[in-house]
Amino acid sequence: MEVKEISQAVIGRLPRYFRYLGELKDEGVERISSQELSELMKVTASQIRQDFNNFGGFGQQGYGYNVEFLYNEIGKILGLDKKHNFIIVGAGNLGRALGNYMNFERRGFIFRGMFDRNLELIGKDVRGIKVMPMEELESFVRENDIDIAVLTIPKTGAVEVADKLAHNGIRAIWNFAHVDLNLPKEIQVENVHLSDSLMKLSYNINRYMQENP
Amino acid sequence: MEVKEISQAVIGRLPRYFRYLGELKDEGVERISSQELSELMKVTASQIRQDFNNFGGFGQQGYGYNVEFLYNEIGKILGLDKKHNFIIVGAGNLGRALGNYMNFERRGFIFRGMFDRNLELIGKDVRGIKVMPMEELESFVRENDIDIAVLTIPKTGAVEVADKLAHNGIRAIWNFAHVDLNLPKEIQVENVHLSDSLMKLSYNINRYMQENP
Repeated sequence: MEVKEISQAVIGRLPRYFRYLGELKDEGVERISSQELSELMKVTASQIRQDFNNFGGFGQQGYGYNVEFLYNEIGKILGLDKKHNFIIVGAGNLGRALGNYMNFERRGFIFRGMFDRNLELIGKDVRGIKVMPMEELESFVRENDIDIAVLTIPKTGAVEVADKLAHNGIRAIWNFAHVDLNLPKEIQVENVHLSDSLMKLSYNINRYMQENP
Repeated sequence: MEVKEISQAVIGRLPRYFRYLGELKDEGVERISSQELSELMKVTASQIRQDFNNFGGFGQQGYGYNVEFLYNEIGKILGLDKKHNFIIVGAGNLGRALGNYMNFERRGFIFRGMFDRNLELIGKDVRGIKVMPMEELESFVRENDIDIAVLTIPKTGAVEVADKLAHNGIRAIWNFAHVDLNLPKEIQVENVHLSDSLMKLSYNINRYMQENP
């Protein structure tokens, strides 16, 4: 399928469609109208149709969508039909939490290696993967066809590590370090700055309290 | 200061301004122009001015902004000058990672309690907080002035736990469970669906590979 230029806002909504369709599929639902999907997901039906039109529409609206077909198509658009090897840099609590998260494997993300500069963590086991020293990071990335690096290290050092990864062929960085990385365009970066998210929550609490004293 | 209706997109950008200004402040920078801030943050100067105009502008553009003043003002808007008590529901790796994250305290978020239904985890210590059984959750929230609950439990059960929290006076939920919560409007919810974020990354890798075969 030919994919047109699609806004990051639409792309940001695709995983949520995929999640809901996966649940419908697991429940044995075969068809769903955009109206039903709209009520379930609390977005307008026209938003859904507009989003889907970016990808050719996925079938007739009157009759509804075939759930499994739609689930598979969105999965393909998201690249989930392909396998991606990933490593985690930073074997602290967050890194270990992500390493232990089994669902990533179901989506095609294969956990291959874990690195830390803390000597006490080297050799520790996270779901069958031994933590390796940072000195081995670059050769490991080059030699093991690693696509994605998850950065769960403090912001000090994160920029430098990201540059090293970029020089050794990484395709994408899932960045949990509290710093924005400036990498060449060909490296995809998705930031998860947890503090930013908590501050947004704080804003909304504060705002609500001002409006409802 | 009177705060007008402000879009979530603008609010979503405030924490990033706050983060950059905090770094500038730590480096001893006293004033910065919107142009300099623009280059540092890789957003246009007009975007910055537009965002700031939502809050009255924060001082003259020609002369530049006073970094510390701007940092403090944005902090106030984000509600970071107030203390918020939070609990974590779910004492797995992710819950413990968040419990151990000291920076939240610096922003006024005070870690007060941790809960899990796994009996093996009850009584374990996370940064001075003992994991409590789920049976104590509701009374603890009521009696300890808890504003924010962090949900780091599997999606099964998350909706029910969120409802209980809502009935016992929680103001906000920072939701890491892979499910959308349907709560009354007065409860602020900020979702961090990590799988969604990883799928977005996967899309961007896939897309780049299609365009650059």
